[in-house]
Amino acid sequence: MNGAESLVKTLLGSGVDVCFANPGTSEMHFVAALDRVPGMRCVLGLQENIVTGAADGYWRMAEKPACTLLHCGPGLANGLAGLHDARRARSGIVNVVGDQAVYHRPFDAPLTADTEGWARGASAWVRTSSRSEDVGADAAVAVQAARTSPGQVATLILPSDSSWNEGGVVAAALPVPAVPQADPHAIRQAARLLREKRNVLLLLGGLALREGAQQQAQRIAAATGAKLLAEGSNARIQRGRGRLPLERVPYVNELAVKALEPYEHIILVNAKEPIGFFGYPGKPSRFWREGCELHALTRLEQDAETALRALAEELGAPAAAMPDPGPRPEAPRGSLSPEGLARAVAALMPDGAVVVDESVTYGRGFFSESHAAPPHDWLQNCGGAIGYGPPVAVGAAIGAGGRRIIALQADGSAMYTLQALWTQARERLPVTTVILSNRKYQILIGEYQNVGANPGRTAMDMLDLGNPDIGWVQLANSLGVEAAQAANLETLGDLMAQSFSRPGPFLIELLI
Amino acid sequence: MNGAESLVKTLLGSGVDVCFANPGTSEMHFVAALDRVPGMRCVLGLQENIVTGAADGYWRMAEKPACTLLHCGPGLANGLAGLHDARRARSGIVNVVGDQAVYHRPFDAPLTADTEGWARGASAWVRTSSRSEDVGADAAVAVQAARTSPGQVATLILPSDSSWNEGGVVAAALPVPAVPQADPHAIRQAARLLREKRNVLLLLGGLALREGAQQQAQRIAAATGAKLLAEGSNARIQRGRGRLPLERVPYVNELAVKALEPYEHIILVNAKEPIGFFGYPGKPSRFWREGCELHALTRLEQDAETALRALAEELGAPAAAMPDPGPRPEAPRGSLSPEGLARAVAALMPDGAVVVDESVTYGRGFFSESHAAPPHDWLQNCGGAIGYGPPVAVGAAIGAGGRRIIALQADGSAMYTLQALWTQARERLPVTTVILSNRKYQILIGEYQNVGANPGRTAMDMLDLGNPDIGWVQLANSLGVEAAQAANLETLGDLMAQSFSRPGPFLIELLI
Repeated sequence: MNGAESLVKTLLGSGVDVCFANPGTSEMHFVAALDRVPGMRCVLGLQENIVTGAADGYWRMAEKPACTLLHCGPGLANGLAGLHDARRARSGIVNVVGDQAVYHRPFDAPLTADTEGWARGASAWVRTSSRSEDVGADAAVAVQAARTSPGQVATLILPSDSSWNEGGVVAAALPVPAVPQADPHAIRQAARLLREKRNVLLLLGGLALREGAQQQAQRIAAATGAKLLAEGSNARIQRGRGRLPLERVPYVNELAVKALEPYEHIILVNAKEPIGFFGYPGKPSRFWREGCELHALTRLEQDAETALRALAEELGAPAAAMPDPGPRPEAPRGSLSPEGLARAVAALMPDGAVVVDESVTYGRGFFSESHAAPPHDWLQNCGGAIGYGPPVAVGAAIGAGGRRIIALQADGSAMYTLQALWTQARERLPVTTVILSNRKYQILIGEYQNVGANPGRTAMDMLDLGNPDIGWVQLANSLGVEAAQAANLETLGDLMAQSFSRPGPFLIELLI
Repeated sequence: MNGAESLVKTLLGSGVDVCFANPGTSEMHFVAALDRVPGMRCVLGLQENIVTGAADGYWRMAEKPACTLLHCGPGLANGLAGLHDARRARSGIVNVVGDQAVYHRPFDAPLTADTEGWARGASAWVRTSSRSEDVGADAAVAVQAARTSPGQVATLILPSDSSWNEGGVVAAALPVPAVPQADPHAIRQAARLLREKRNVLLLLGGLALREGAQQQAQRIAAATGAKLLAEGSNARIQRGRGRLPLERVPYVNELAVKALEPYEHIILVNAKEPIGFFGYPGKPSRFWREGCELHALTRLEQDAETALRALAEELGAPAAAMPDPGPRPEAPRGSLSPEGLARAVAALMPDGAVVVDESVTYGRGFFSESHAAPPHDWLQNCGGAIGYGPPVAVGAAIGAGGRRIIALQADGSAMYTLQALWTQARERLPVTTVILSNRKYQILIGEYQNVGANPGRTAMDMLDLGNPDIGWVQLANSLGVEAAQAANLETLGDLMAQSFSRPGPFLIELLI
């Protein structure tokens, strides 16, 4: 058995059975092994951020890692932005990067690069398997690293001779490491705080945003009057009827400061301290007010639901019903607006939909319109690397096993990773993409104005996406995805409803 | 004056007046400075490899650096493949990467990443300007580093507070470092070799492939019987009538070994030792035969033309006419073939055209058909990172000041960087792209067969680009580029000729 075959068999034995791939010459023996050993679903991405972003989306929904297949240092480099977002979303990925044969590396052939160095900036675990005998064992450790709470990017670099040489040994699956539990002292301290103080916020992130944890958080809030809020960007929030009507820390600096102004104590539950995406002259990096104290109930890798339940017990909090979000919105009519789009999504989405949100400026108020929608999941961009949406939609569709994906997608961001549409077509994935076509980098025009002026001609050469306008319907068609335009809420609703009733992808260009 | 303004003024004063940009929030003060200070041509790319690849193509034709503008670590990551190819092509680039404010960095905000670490793998020079007072001086050094022979990627990281803080100081342009000259001993030794030995090859790379150096090489070859060959991949070869009818070291291992088999001595002139792109089981990494001796006339950074002239003088070689390549080919007719395409290009290209070649498998024999074309430049992918063609075409068009660019472009490779078409349309660049649409990764199917089998279904899921077919005409149109299909050489010729007579870009989908 060669190293490549030991890799495929070890991955399959460790529960990894989806491979997002963009292979090259140095990966041909791995491709051949995937061909010989049945059981791996191989999904081609035409650029590497499609591959890594898909693996991110897959983890978020499937709650287990996929593997990738990338080609040498530059192929890895092309996927680093997707890995960066995955790292920030705490997604587990077994990131396999083929590379030059060990003995060929000293010749510094054209594609030779610092593959390990580039991998480190986006990975919690990096290893190069330099001998075919080690590939199986290294792969088993990679899967274990990827599944280590809360989820990690584990990069396994596979020189081509480790792949083709005989001597491969299949390794048994290693145990998934137990999720660490909260410190009992942290639970007692949080309980004391909640008993003694007013103006306490529980800031929820990560797995604290799943339904079970939300129920415990609601017990605590109902018993103590503490408020609940989600982080600004979240890998996956379970939302809609039966879940908490959570808002999130606003993106805009002033709004975030205002939202946190009431609180004297913030208890972090799988959440990081609330800080700004960027620094701005004269504005605070920290969003909490002077004198507010931060406490951690659970660190990012600790078990939020168990800790919240223990805290609720410690407080003697009775079971509490989820708030009634009121009636489901009706499908709206008339001209387009952010609220109208959010209401249309809430009104029309099928049960169990998954919203992949890269709506940027247009989508900042979407949450408040969709608390009364059917139960659904909402995925956001946690790393800020642009173009996360289309690839995450690919992976989420595969990871969610047939549930409808609704991708709310800014046009400028979509252009970074538009190749994902082709994979959606090829795999006939149930993805409805709504392109928010404003034909500019609206967020940057806003930021420019914050600098103190309106952009002039040179600046607009870098901020405006018109000239030429991008034809999203044609573009989607050219990549095998059916598409249509909508200029009002009726057409939007009709097109969404149609797309939900058919298999495969569809794209709606929303002329906002 | 803030740091950003000192940066723009220093760049302009140092001769850098083109900026390929994909800005973000942390770069807004730089964008504002570009708006206020006139003189910089700003060209937007919708993904970062468009930006870095364009800067590569610009250097190759303009022979001076452009600057880039990228957004934080992930934006840099998205442009690393382009920088990798530029590094291998020995292109000078002032790579400006905006980043988090220095004081905001410890908060580990979403876009925070190891920007310096990622930059190092593709840069000869990296510096972070942490104070606005230093930005101007650092920028001047960056330009000098970029212009250091043979051309280098110099990455200047610009935290946003260095950009917005007052205290900026414009720095004067630093001298361009002199090009190092060859060691006189190396010239004498090469002369002795050429006098005493038969079976000597001069392997030409880098600036040894410009017209003036070729004339000197021809003197030497005519006087000594030495043979001349170009490296396998070359940043820019001057070709056509009045230039040498050079062939290049073949890509395919066996063919390369065969091509170098006759030689007992190889003299490297701005060239690296001839080795394989990849290692293969049982095949040599080195292409030269056992016992063949390698000698360096000039290292990569040394002045090839002067050294070749000195060598010719040392040999007492008289002036020698360039070989007559015979008559220019007629426009071919009939069904498509690689030779037919190469002949059509040779027959129809305008004087001074620039061929950007990412033709991969289809283009391996293009050279032999186009020696009798009018004088032109031919650019190749030196780093092997895929998708180099469309962005390099953008930059070459701007750097070559109106000359027609003919981009011979494999379809699979084009999909990595198709956003470049939009920039071609926006800037109305004279680029004729010929998409070689075979709807598969043909190179990989060949490599798979070398492994010893035909690809099965799982492998073809990763190697076939059909299902769905990509509609290149629609795709180009959607990005503002006119386009048409050609299924035979007559149509190809008609479309090429039409495109050459009009300003702006055009795309021909060649159904091969």
